[in-house]
Amino acid sequence: MTALQELKAELRTIHDLHSAAAVLEWDQSTYMPARGAEARGRQIALLGKLAHERRTSPRMADLLSQLSGLSDDESVDGALYRRAHRLWERATQVPAELVAEAKAHAAETYVAWTQARAENNFAAIRPFLEKNVELSRRWAGCFPDANHVLDPFVDAMDPGMTAASIRTLFSELRDELVPLVEAILEKPAPDRSCLEQFFPKDQQLAFGRQVVTGLGYDFARGRQDLTAHPFMIRFAANDIRITTRVNENDLEPALLGTVHEAGHAMYEQQIDPAFDGTPLGEGTSMGVHESQSRLWENLVARSRPFWLCYFPELRARFPDQFRDVTVDEFYRAINRVGRSLIRVESDEVTYNLHVMLRFELEAQMLEGTLPVADLPDAWNARIQNDLGVTPASDAEGCMQDVHWFASTVGGTFQGYTLGNLMAAQFYQAAEKALPTLSAEISRGNTAPLRQWLAEHVHQHGARYLPDELMVRATGRPLEIAPFLAHLRAKYGDLYGLTP
Amino acid sequence: MTALQELKAELRTIHDLHSAAAVLEWDQSTYMPARGAEARGRQIALLGKLAHERRTSPRMADLLSQLSGLSDDESVDGALYRRAHRLWERATQVPAELVAEAKAHAAETYVAWTQARAENNFAAIRPFLEKNVELSRRWAGCFPDANHVLDPFVDAMDPGMTAASIRTLFSELRDELVPLVEAILEKPAPDRSCLEQFFPKDQQLAFGRQVVTGLGYDFARGRQDLTAHPFMIRFAANDIRITTRVNENDLEPALLGTVHEAGHAMYEQQIDPAFDGTPLGEGTSMGVHESQSRLWENLVARSRPFWLCYFPELRARFPDQFRDVTVDEFYRAINRVGRSLIRVESDEVTYNLHVMLRFELEAQMLEGTLPVADLPDAWNARIQNDLGVTPASDAEGCMQDVHWFASTVGGTFQGYTLGNLMAAQFYQAAEKALPTLSAEISRGNTAPLRQWLAEHVHQHGARYLPDELMVRATGRPLEIAPFLAHLRAKYGDLYGLTP
Repeated sequence: MTALQELKAELRTIHDLHSAAAVLEWDQSTYMPARGAEARGRQIALLGKLAHERRTSPRMADLLSQLSGLSDDESVDGALYRRAHRLWERATQVPAELVAEAKAHAAETYVAWTQARAENNFAAIRPFLEKNVELSRRWAGCFPDANHVLDPFVDAMDPGMTAASIRTLFSELRDELVPLVEAILEKPAPDRSCLEQFFPKDQQLAFGRQVVTGLGYDFARGRQDLTAHPFMIRFAANDIRITTRVNENDLEPALLGTVHEAGHAMYEQQIDPAFDGTPLGEGTSMGVHESQSRLWENLVARSRPFWLCYFPELRARFPDQFRDVTVDEFYRAINRVGRSLIRVESDEVTYNLHVMLRFELEAQMLEGTLPVADLPDAWNARIQNDLGVTPASDAEGCMQDVHWFASTVGGTFQGYTLGNLMAAQFYQAAEKALPTLSAEISRGNTAPLRQWLAEHVHQHGARYLPDELMVRATGRPLEIAPFLAHLRAKYGDLYGLTP
Repeated sequence: MTALQELKAELRTIHDLHSAAAVLEWDQSTYMPARGAEARGRQIALLGKLAHERRTSPRMADLLSQLSGLSDDESVDGALYRRAHRLWERATQVPAELVAEAKAHAAETYVAWTQARAENNFAAIRPFLEKNVELSRRWAGCFPDANHVLDPFVDAMDPGMTAASIRTLFSELRDELVPLVEAILEKPAPDRSCLEQFFPKDQQLAFGRQVVTGLGYDFARGRQDLTAHPFMIRFAANDIRITTRVNENDLEPALLGTVHEAGHAMYEQQIDPAFDGTPLGEGTSMGVHESQSRLWENLVARSRPFWLCYFPELRARFPDQFRDVTVDEFYRAINRVGRSLIRVESDEVTYNLHVMLRFELEAQMLEGTLPVADLPDAWNARIQNDLGVTPASDAEGCMQDVHWFASTVGGTFQGYTLGNLMAAQFYQAAEKALPTLSAEISRGNTAPLRQWLAEHVHQHGARYLPDELMVRATGRPLEIAPFLAHLRAKYGDLYGLTP
């Protein structure tokens, strides 16, 4: 066996250990009896530990060193080497003791957070978050080349980005978004009562299944189950699953959630099968992954062409609920912009303000410029400024998201907005290449879009870093203009804004 | 850490690797999209390999050697040492190359068997079975202390038993069973048409769930799903699952199959929780495990007291199907004895003739006294002699069961009949200790039986070998008398036989 073959075999073993752990996690979220949790946690941790041991073994270091000639190679093997090296470096850079301490603290924090949030008691969670910030700073300290304390976390999720580059991008975006939101919210809100009727669970699931089958999610290589929090999970190229949850009194969350997860899954389903079992056989970053879920959710499934095709199907399935609703009324309802306090319930326009707020506050906490004790005030001031609302409680303010209370602080939010920006830029490029795209979608034909994405984004898996992928697919680096153009065109029309 | 603590930690890691593989296998049989099979097989094999490496590591040998003082210790730790040593010995005794060759051949044989059986072509599978017999003989040759070529396989499944001891037992049993079956089959067969109606799947599942909940299977620490072949599977003390399949045109298979698997599961659910994650935290042998499934299936769920309680429930759920059926007609129907050619479709009385036939023929094949080419004739002669029927084809003769075509030959059948014998002996002891047992069951109260089993059988897990467990629980070594007494009393009454 050559060193390269041996590296690939070793990477495949690591991949298979992670995939096995993923099956255990999927079952934990779907079918496991609650009392199985303790042993399951131990078994998942064991598989993670075995994978980490192999990732950081002397043999792995030796193989990578023998293969360092590949580091600038433009071939697939070169890309494989670079990603394997990157994963090895990240795994070896943080001492095992710190990893263990941070994990143990995160587990305690999570338990404390569920209670503190239920009791709206920020004081109770504050010392946990303070220690988590301190642990995160020590973690970042293991990366001495980083320019900013947030950079190692950002780089882990969205390679190529830095705290500085994101701040610049987000600052420009916010300057445009805040006045746009203001202009929209001055107008009368569309009526969304047609979505807030009783829709039986099985019928919602059947319609969601019909929609994502139509969009191109391949159930022969996947399936959908119910979970408390929806997700997409990959076990192998031919086993990529999604989950959802259903609110019987609101049609929107399960439907668009299903499309969202199917968007993630279609990305994974269209990766070059030759990459399966290697570090190239997955999405290249959180931002690019989120771009694929948001593209299908927002640019397709919230579009008028899409509903021209699917509204008759929806009405056939729910004739009583939609007897007196027109497709345009429905289209307006499903695109209502509002002053939500809660990120996960917010709309396509305001969502990014929620994300940017979190990114900025976590940056300041890690820098030490925002003491954890001042977090609630800083949160409330910012959301009042951006959206004109103030949370009545910290439970619906700075304690609402699990992210800061279940892992190290930092790097887990920016990808949501990067994804929205990328989605618009990819979609603009696809529209340019496919002049009849809208017309095809209104006839229920998404194959051209899927094929464009397969060719320019999906098949490459993690071969290219996000920047390079973006330039290859759209001819330009990441920009905010396509996203703003999309919002201005769509919501200008929907809300009758003066251009 | 002491050597004993280190041994326990190492055994727990091995247990957790096997449990993780079990979750992957469960998903493979329940929910996995078919196309996920290739990667899944690789991932299950990886976990098995890692467990085997740890089981046979120099460190394990060293720990066991340090702890050899425990080998005669009567404590739980002594039992743990003995079982760990036994598992280590079995794992180290067969060379890895032979294990790999046998596995590879078994996989090829399985594929060839599915086709040969479908085409009723024994000639096509014959060379595969011949090689499998040869591999099995080589495998047995790795155990030079064995008196008979079948002994290593029997010992792996039913420790303490040998080919000789089973032949003696089975010979006595057959001498009694053959005339009993003849006497029964001379009488008119009960009418089972009430079972052969249309019973919708969901209703069958709901009734099965109601029954096994009533019997004591704890769904808070388990669940039931659908599979092509039903099984019980343990992931941890608090996650022990069962599966079933449903024939909508026959009530019996899913109902009694569910009780059967729940019987296996209740054994596992009542093992001392302190044994979880150790080699003592599982059933002690195939025979004892089967005794628990058969006890609930045959001695409880085919009994008249049980149906006195559950027939009204059944009729309430299926009023049209059972409007004109009495509980005694139903009891007779569900206990019909017949000349089945197929083991898995046979009744409580003839089942053991099917098992003994297989045990004897596999013994002769391994001894070399029965050439594989003569297997069909030997099979047909024996079943004609024992049951008065001859298969019209080898597909419903010697090719019907997967066992010889999916693993080494030997040791996998005797446990079914050992289980039937043990079940009757355990039940007889329970009846003696609980004089109102039948009356309680007819009131739907199985708690006393469950508690008796927990105390005398279940809690001990694999602490005692089957022989010792039997003597502790019933005061006697394994005997055929209780089983024959049960059959004679029950079927004498049902069929009006002269005593």
